[in-house]
Amino acid sequence: MSIVSEALRDREFGVAPLETLKSMSGLEFLQALIDRRLPAPPITRTLGFLLTEVAEGRALFRGQPTFEHYNPIGSVHGGWAATLLDSCMGCAVQSTLPQGSGYTTLEFKINLVRGMTDKTGPVEAEGTIVQSGRRVGVAEGRITDGEGRLLAFGTTTCLIFPL
Amino acid sequence: MSIVSEALRDREFGVAPLETLKSMSGLEFLQALIDRRLPAPPITRTLGFLLTEVAEGRALFRGQPTFEHYNPIGSVHGGWAATLLDSCMGCAVQSTLPQGSGYTTLEFKINLVRGMTDKTGPVEAEGTIVQSGRRVGVAEGRITDGEGRLLAFGTTTCLIFPL
Amino acid sequence: MSIVSEALRDREFGVAPLETLKSMSGLEFLQALIDRRLPAPPITRTLGFLLTEVAEGRALFRGQPTFEHYNPIGSVHGGWAATLLDSCMGCAVQSTLPQGSGYTTLEFKINLVRGMTDKTGPVEAEGTIVQSGRRVGVAEGRITDGEGRLLAFGTTTCLIFPL
Amino acid sequence: MSIVSEALRDREFGVAPLETLKSMSGLEFLQALIDRRLPAPPITRTLGFLLTEVAEGRALFRGQPTFEHYNPIGSVHGGWAATLLDSCMGCAVQSTLPQGSGYTTLEFKINLVRGMTDKTGPVEAEGTIVQSGRRVGVAEGRITDGEGRLLAFGTTTCLIFPL
Repeated sequence: MSIVSEALRDREFGVAPLETLKSMSGLEFLQALIDRRLPAPPITRTLGFLLTEVAEGRALFRGQPTFEHYNPIGSVHGGWAATLLDSCMGCAVQSTLPQGSGYTTLEFKINLVRGMTDKTGPVEAEGTIVQSGRRVGVAEGRITDGEGRLLAFGTTTCLIFPL
Repeated sequence: MSIVSEALRDREFGVAPLETLKSMSGLEFLQALIDRRLPAPPITRTLGFLLTEVAEGRALFRGQPTFEHYNPIGSVHGGWAATLLDSCMGCAVQSTLPQGSGYTTLEFKINLVRGMTDKTGPVEAEGTIVQSGRRVGVAEGRITDGEGRLLAFGTTTCLIFPL
Repeated sequence: MSIVSEALRDREFGVAPLETLKSMSGLEFLQALIDRRLPAPPITRTLGFLLTEVAEGRALFRGQPTFEHYNPIGSVHGGWAATLLDSCMGCAVQSTLPQGSGYTTLEFKINLVRGMTDKTGPVEAEGTIVQSGRRVGVAEGRITDGEGRLLAFGTTTCLIFPL
Repeated sequence: MSIVSEALRDREFGVAPLETLKSMSGLEFLQALIDRRLPAPPITRTLGFLLTEVAEGRALFRGQPTFEHYNPIGSVHGGWAATLLDSCMGCAVQSTLPQGSGYTTLEFKINLVRGMTDKTGPVEAEGTIVQSGRRVGVAEGRITDGEGRLLAFGTTTCLIFPL
């Protein structure tokens, strides 16, 4: 069992009601996810990753690639890396939002630098804010393995709006 | 139960051995996946989508977003769209490869045009080759809903090499 | 002399005042550029291209790569293709804007499919709207040569706002 | 007159013959451009920028936006930033190539973070290698103004091949 499925084993999964989202800053919301005061997002169970650290302008996820993530040609599907990068980059933007602001991802681009397999072990995905405006947030993200080697990286553009 | 989980219900899941991959053209390999002569890729079970049609330079997937794909802010995670787009674009490239050639995705970029929820219903992801060279393949992809509305689209660059 | 420098020979170059921009829809503004009722943008003289056709959701530019656009390794710089694509994609977005709305390009991505030289001859860059919203516009663009071969293509995301 | 046109004033412009390109490592070639042992690339005169520093995996350009770079809506065209970023990212890749290897840019994506005008003053564009392989090079780039503020950034994927 991966360290991630261990951490997720006794979590509740669900989606926070809009009222909850509206009542907190982005950073408070993300911290509440880490502190288990909110249910974990369903996608994190489906794909085996979780948010572990957040600060203003920065979000860190951990995940572990397994056989369940394999494509037909014998390695982890690029979509798994994309999901981790989209998560850490989006949450880096969200961590800068005041109460009452929401966001949506307009686009992202990723480069897959090294392939992953079920032998890769735990990985980290770190998102960092690049530009935090009133209407637009831009962030970048990097996935690294246990030895700090870069596996994938990307950039994203998010739209910010009143909730 | 979604139409996709129905279609996947009695499939075997696994990864084809390298010898199998080497013994077929890209198009033959993908057709064998559709014809169930090869096991379905594990990621398709994990994320609920499947390859349904392939021709030279074109690959069509079907999927259905469900609650299992939700992010913490109440909609389908962008990573789900990214996985479908990476799949249909990569397979569009693969469908042009002669026997003995393999490929890997170097990068892709996607735009999320309309959000998805568990009310969206079945979607199609169609990949189309743009440039098919000896060392590089470029493709684009589009996800549309049951009424033909564009939900997301993207472009990819793949490296082609001898297996 | 290229067909483009011919067409630009007796143009005035300059930037329209903000009042002019505010007084027209996007389509009217772009048509006025074509009809020479407004000065041609300085960048078009510098890089040798011009807007030749516009309709709602579509903008067509023509240009001709010359020695002045060469990089140190003996072909036309990718930035020349990027400038044409940014132009045709941005104007495709602008062509959908009502009077009183402005836009700015948030990001774009391009693939360089075939290299260009001073032997390539005149090229066309066509931008097409993909999504036209109240706050965001998304477009794609393609550069083709005189025989219709694809040379480069891209996608862009623009922010729309009141002027 | 900008500091860049000053620096370019007494340069020769041209393209190095293929034999010269083949006879040097990427780093030697770029250093020869800086040391004026090779003619400056034509695009640098056309768009007003120049290579000023290079090291293995890093290339620095300087440029200055002027009225000649303006788009029709009153600011510097995004294509100017794209050209600087493509230059510094491509040269970061080139700086890692051994003698006998060439490269071409497959794709790049840029985000325009802050607009530029003819009041922006001199800017720097720094490219940094992210992944340097035998067949593929990946780099990122950033444009900053005189106060170190980020104006634009991007990522690129290049194909490497024997000359």
